[in-house]
Amino acid sequence: MKPIDRTLAAQLTAATPGTTVRLCGHVHRRRELATVTFLVLRDRSGLAQVVIRPADGQQAPPEETPVEVIGIATGNPQAPGGVEITSPAVTVLSEPALTPPVELWRPELAAGLPTLLDHAPVTWRHPAVRARWELAAASLRGFRATLDAAGFTEVHSPKIVESATESGANVFEIDYFGRPAYLAQSPQFYKQQLVGVFERVYEVGPVFRAEPHDTVRHLAEYVNLDVELGFVRDHRDVLAVLREVLAGMVEGIETYPAAAVGRLGVELPVVPPEIPVIHFAEALRLVGAPEDEPDLAPEHERALGAWARETYGSDFLAVEGYPIRKRPFYTHPWSRQARPPGDGSNSFDLLFRGLELVTGGQRLHRLTDYEAAIRARGEEPAAYASYLQAFAHGMPPHGGFALGLERWAARLVEAANIREVTLFPRDLHRLTP
Amino acid sequence: MKPIDRTLAAQLTAATPGTTVRLCGHVHRRRELATVTFLVLRDRSGLAQVVIRPADGQQAPPEETPVEVIGIATGNPQAPGGVEITSPAVTVLSEPALTPPVELWRPELAAGLPTLLDHAPVTWRHPAVRARWELAAASLRGFRATLDAAGFTEVHSPKIVESATESGANVFEIDYFGRPAYLAQSPQFYKQQLVGVFERVYEVGPVFRAEPHDTVRHLAEYVNLDVELGFVRDHRDVLAVLREVLAGMVEGIETYPAAAVGRLGVELPVVPPEIPVIHFAEALRLVGAPEDEPDLAPEHERALGAWARETYGSDFLAVEGYPIRKRPFYTHPWSRQARPPGDGSNSFDLLFRGLELVTGGQRLHRLTDYEAAIRARGEEPAAYASYLQAFAHGMPPHGGFALGLERWAARLVEAANIREVTLFPRDLHRLTP
Repeated sequence: MKPIDRTLAAQLTAATPGTTVRLCGHVHRRRELATVTFLVLRDRSGLAQVVIRPADGQQAPPEETPVEVIGIATGNPQAPGGVEITSPAVTVLSEPALTPPVELWRPELAAGLPTLLDHAPVTWRHPAVRARWELAAASLRGFRATLDAAGFTEVHSPKIVESATESGANVFEIDYFGRPAYLAQSPQFYKQQLVGVFERVYEVGPVFRAEPHDTVRHLAEYVNLDVELGFVRDHRDVLAVLREVLAGMVEGIETYPAAAVGRLGVELPVVPPEIPVIHFAEALRLVGAPEDEPDLAPEHERALGAWARETYGSDFLAVEGYPIRKRPFYTHPWSRQARPPGDGSNSFDLLFRGLELVTGGQRLHRLTDYEAAIRARGEEPAAYASYLQAFAHGMPPHGGFALGLERWAARLVEAANIREVTLFPRDLHRLTP
Repeated sequence: MKPIDRTLAAQLTAATPGTTVRLCGHVHRRRELATVTFLVLRDRSGLAQVVIRPADGQQAPPEETPVEVIGIATGNPQAPGGVEITSPAVTVLSEPALTPPVELWRPELAAGLPTLLDHAPVTWRHPAVRARWELAAASLRGFRATLDAAGFTEVHSPKIVESATESGANVFEIDYFGRPAYLAQSPQFYKQQLVGVFERVYEVGPVFRAEPHDTVRHLAEYVNLDVELGFVRDHRDVLAVLREVLAGMVEGIETYPAAAVGRLGVELPVVPPEIPVIHFAEALRLVGAPEDEPDLAPEHERALGAWARETYGSDFLAVEGYPIRKRPFYTHPWSRQARPPGDGSNSFDLLFRGLELVTGGQRLHRLTDYEAAIRARGEEPAAYASYLQAFAHGMPPHGGFALGLERWAARLVEAANIREVTLFPRDLHRLTP
């Protein structure tokens, strides 16, 4: 006899009543009443209700046990999707599961963050917890779809690098065949070099920061979404690509795991046709900060977020023209005619609901500018020889941005701690699971 | 005046003759003849010919210089795409480029591997070299598209891990805030745990092997394509997914950078509707190896590849049933009724044109089986506590596979050395660029 094809829980609603179906999943919930036992099965698509009556001669195994259920699809308006399984044969596919550290069947997971993180392999099974990552994964699909359509090439750059030159601080050291090497803090140097090759590139991959800070916003390892493109006029062209990328990420969430958004009650941001931009100097004035402040404080960012919401109805606000001394050495000086250059730069931060989400801008592209910028920080260009090759042999005006996946997801679901949206976080204290 | 939109080289063929167009790119080739100078411009889409006559009053900058060219689209059957640019205004967008270490405009790059690798940021610009990575990138698109459509969730697991338990050897050690940690050799443990959450997962990311071998096949860091799925009957269900994935990768190459395939003259493999499978014991017999051999030697793999080509017309052959003692401890014993279990396993290697490309199989899924397997290798299950949580709390029968991106690309383009298809390789000796 041909085995019956598997039906997913979400497909049950379309099953013809009276037909035999086969489901596979974990026992999400077991409720033993006097005359009937309800077994709620959970698979990747959702939940299905299985009704076990005494005449069925079946046992409902403990919660989380993986099972196969073969039974009759039967209409029941009270069941999820309007269809439940009756007269089931239940087969345990492993051993009966031990009781989970948290009650995964409750609509809300009643557990503190340490419990969630210590038991991550199990607590991620909770539908509302899982949905957090599903949003992140859907965002990645939207990110790539947008850039693929715009002629970008996906690249993968090495995570083991020879020197800690980019920032010098907060790098992890490795024993690399007996000599020191470091974990890359970002693909910055590589994505720039690859603009000379592919003109438009993106990379999704891990970056590493030996952050000695124990905060709700910092991780020692996270997933970075990096973009870089050539032949830009200035950072505004980069910002225009960022706008498309954000719209694509939101669209990805709307398109793919629609159920996840519902499970979380997330209010998706609206990405305006053009992201409002404010100059750093105006931003300082707006929040009442002294005009010689070199950066925006978190409370300033919050105030600007509220202002953008009120003024433009936008969850996003770009702040451009940051003082160049506060930006990395490869940052391009301010070049737009709208205001004199001063000490500004063609760089921007993007605030999402009042929190910095993206940093981007135009980079230097002339070899002589790099040599001057490196000498200005008291270093020798020779230390950057490998990186500078690309510039010696001709690089177009270019720029790009980087967006932390976990920070994006945390802000979307309003997580109090970035660890809530990280599958297996790494920080000052946490190296497992 | 509104700036003229940029035209890509590949779009020129559709330009109306006589219209003014704007191109951006690098000077690929400069040929100064007595009465005319030809400037071949290279952008991400291809090449375009610009004709500079004395009356134009323009200079052609040195090769690799980034330029903007505004001129008239003019029909010329000899030009690439049948259209060239005449009466151009050429603007240098950076400084004139230094002469590249290799002549990038030659159809074939005449340079040894060390030169290629030392100058990677520049040598990757050669159209035929760049095409190698474009195939890899297109393969990734096909890989994800296939799995996204089949209900898989993309995941990202940590690369910094607490212990080197999976294999014990060839791991890089990190100084993690003063205590030792390691770079992950694979996402194996995490992708299995996440089967309990998402049921079907994949990850594309770096893996790290402190390979002390200096061979043409090994890298210290490479990009792994990892897949894992639950509710399988045995490894043949995994192989069926692998077949779809390979077909999707080939389709990706056919669909996206069609020009890249042409530039390289690659013969794309045909993925048969079902990948032929041979049992390990039969494979040994076929190649005339002793029946107690625990593994296949490279010459055996080559012979089997030729045999599959001849017998099935297939570039792919799966060898199943490897002796379990040669596979990782989480491997599931042989369970198919076709032959007695013996010391076999529900695992397979996939040979692609006679070379191992993929390793996969069914994993153990019962906690008690794991405890026994870990004790059998003289270790204590407590050392794996974090990993074993998922199994204590119910895991379905599952399996998966891993495929190295660079190995796939190398075999496709018949590269003699895997470093030829790696953007910035890392090995025993090489840590830059």
